[in-house]
Amino acid sequence: MISEAIIGLKCHQCGWDGPAEPFSYICPTCGKNLDFIYDYDCIAASCGPLSLNKDHDDSMWRYLPLLPVKAAPENKSLRVGGTPLVDFPHIAKDLQIGRLQIKDDTRNPSGSLKDRASELAIQHAKEQGKKTIVAASTGNAGSSLAALSAYHGMDSIILAPATAPIAKLTQILQHGAQLVPVDANYDGAFDLAFEWAQKNESYCRNTGVNPILAEGKKTVALEIAEKNDWKAPDHVFVPVGDGCIISGVYKGFFDLLSLKWIDSMPAIHAVQAEGSAAIVDSLVREGDILSVSANTIADSISVDQPRDGDKARRAIIKSGGKGFKVSDDDILEAQKLLSETTGIFAEPAAAAAYAGFLQASQSGIFEDEDHVVVLITGSGLKDTANAQKLLKPVEAVKATLVDVEKYLEKLQG
Amino acid sequence: MISEAIIGLKCHQCGWDGPAEPFSYICPTCGKNLDFIYDYDCIAASCGPLSLNKDHDDSMWRYLPLLPVKAAPENKSLRVGGTPLVDFPHIAKDLQIGRLQIKDDTRNPSGSLKDRASELAIQHAKEQGKKTIVAASTGNAGSSLAALSAYHGMDSIILAPATAPIAKLTQILQHGAQLVPVDANYDGAFDLAFEWAQKNESYCRNTGVNPILAEGKKTVALEIAEKNDWKAPDHVFVPVGDGCIISGVYKGFFDLLSLKWIDSMPAIHAVQAEGSAAIVDSLVREGDILSVSANTIADSISVDQPRDGDKARRAIIKSGGKGFKVSDDDILEAQKLLSETTGIFAEPAAAAAYAGFLQASQSGIFEDEDHVVVLITGSGLKDTANAQKLLKPVEAVKATLVDVEKYLEKLQG
Repeated sequence: MISEAIIGLKCHQCGWDGPAEPFSYICPTCGKNLDFIYDYDCIAASCGPLSLNKDHDDSMWRYLPLLPVKAAPENKSLRVGGTPLVDFPHIAKDLQIGRLQIKDDTRNPSGSLKDRASELAIQHAKEQGKKTIVAASTGNAGSSLAALSAYHGMDSIILAPATAPIAKLTQILQHGAQLVPVDANYDGAFDLAFEWAQKNESYCRNTGVNPILAEGKKTVALEIAEKNDWKAPDHVFVPVGDGCIISGVYKGFFDLLSLKWIDSMPAIHAVQAEGSAAIVDSLVREGDILSVSANTIADSISVDQPRDGDKARRAIIKSGGKGFKVSDDDILEAQKLLSETTGIFAEPAAAAAYAGFLQASQSGIFEDEDHVVVLITGSGLKDTANAQKLLKPVEAVKATLVDVEKYLEKLQG
Repeated sequence: MISEAIIGLKCHQCGWDGPAEPFSYICPTCGKNLDFIYDYDCIAASCGPLSLNKDHDDSMWRYLPLLPVKAAPENKSLRVGGTPLVDFPHIAKDLQIGRLQIKDDTRNPSGSLKDRASELAIQHAKEQGKKTIVAASTGNAGSSLAALSAYHGMDSIILAPATAPIAKLTQILQHGAQLVPVDANYDGAFDLAFEWAQKNESYCRNTGVNPILAEGKKTVALEIAEKNDWKAPDHVFVPVGDGCIISGVYKGFFDLLSLKWIDSMPAIHAVQAEGSAAIVDSLVREGDILSVSANTIADSISVDQPRDGDKARRAIIKSGGKGFKVSDDDILEAQKLLSETTGIFAEPAAAAAYAGFLQASQSGIFEDEDHVVVLITGSGLKDTANAQKLLKPVEAVKATLVDVEKYLEKLQG
């Protein structure tokens, strides 16, 4: 049994609708991605801003009435979600906007926003009686699934490109997941994982084709709204690869608008790496999403074929957002600037959102009083090799006060 | 002006006492380390468990009345402290103890407990009118100081051994600190940093010789007590290098006991790496702390001469704690076990605390109902190279379902 507030599933493409149990990953009619549909009156009867205000649960599970599972997990003290929303008044002033907030989702258990989706997927899998979860991953989804499966006592199998950053593969192995490093890119791993899960009746945590993941990710939007006293910001910047995070962010604000807990939808902007920009390109072209041959240092958003592309486009268009493309150089510069001015060390994919925000700021799309939120989705500690590209090599300094002084003079030069 | 509740500073060794302003790093009489002394009645007049219960600040700054600064920083939304205290009932049951909690301090902004000390030191430095902070660091204190200096707009200079883990040096550089990688071990860097700070009238964030750092670190004890409804656990396991974290943990519980907010002191156990065990060795020998030539993979607790050794010994002895020594192999095994069974990826120094807890469990020091807290002080993402030592090399698998199935069969073998 899932939540009473769930009406069922609906295909965003052909309009098919059906029950949420038995669960379908994709539309049984056209094969496209599904949305969970809620009875908002039913939610409002059990939960509201006032009851939430009294709730001491500081994890994403405070929003259980808005999630498509029956119960919260027995153990939730590891705290997925509840990440800081950090204010930067000085940067806002410099860039002539009303308010800048960074949602620091590097502070999740495994260091990325993906934990929100893994946490919900594991609970959903348990409620479906599944013992094993399988996922394709460029690294973050896999390390997240591995860590939270270890926490919740679930078996996990991760198919990842053998070329994923070593820190992410280490995380996956470290947490005792079964890692299959495939000689393929993310797209190849994706198809194999889905096929394997279907054949073995396992739960599939592949981003995009499982609507539960966007439901988990939407909790980041709920937190942004609640921390701002149920006032939506004017703009939200989201790094986009597969398109599932931006779909989730949109779904979160959509739910809150449907519940009338907020009274406006923010413009949700998609930022893609130039070398992996299928969704933004389709917006410019006003046509279908075409596969690309992805090539960017931002591995977490490096995808040929965005598996949640259509729902991502819907999020951008319906929210009045725009698409931004940033180069790998832009990403590395934004990553460094972010670290130096905010104290937040983002991985390249996450820094892309900040690069997009800076580009938007220069292009003059903001009004003076605009309130902007930038979503930082993963920790820079997951990929120190790329950050090092902008850093000078470390040379040992002789251990005397005179040598230290000389070295500092040179640095401050 | 610092907090009204501060009576002054006192030498733990010779008993000298004096005002907290002007501020002395070390005892002007004997050169030993100092403690901040509080007027507990003054604290109790403005703050108590009931008032804290109503406080929505989820950072370490909720304990401002117990800290030796005048005010909280203007910006605190990055959230230092307020880390999860995670319950593991299954592990507790397996090990036949009443309760096991892990304090996951990897969830601080820069990924380590050191952020608590840096955060307070930066505020103290600002209140002292200082523009630059200098510190010696094996990596974590430096990356913490660099990140939080970037956040608070403070200049920082870090002297680190040039051999520190690359992820930590990357973090320091990434946040725009001035890194001086010295051709020396931590102890050499320590002396140089203190000398440089004195000569240049800069603020010195060297662990041990500045009592403000233990005051910042004590907030972890305050959080443990508050989350347990002001009931102290029976045992706390702390990884020990310089001895400053364990001094801080003791100070936190000492303050709470003096305030009568808790009614017992936990046994505070020190865990050191076999190759860097000056403090534990001195306990066994019942003699002075003698320098060692440190050699352990756990870089964060690898020190020749523990700069807060005497206060660490006091913490262990006065709390009824014990000393534990763990080998590098114990540490790596505990690190892997912790990741696989809890979802928490600890760096080697932090995993040492868990290794010590496992050793204690085997040696039968716990009663059936005992409540144990293990302090995990830093993230495994800061040092993936060591974790990889227990992992098999990644070999790419051919991207077909048959090959994936064969590979999984072999894994599950």
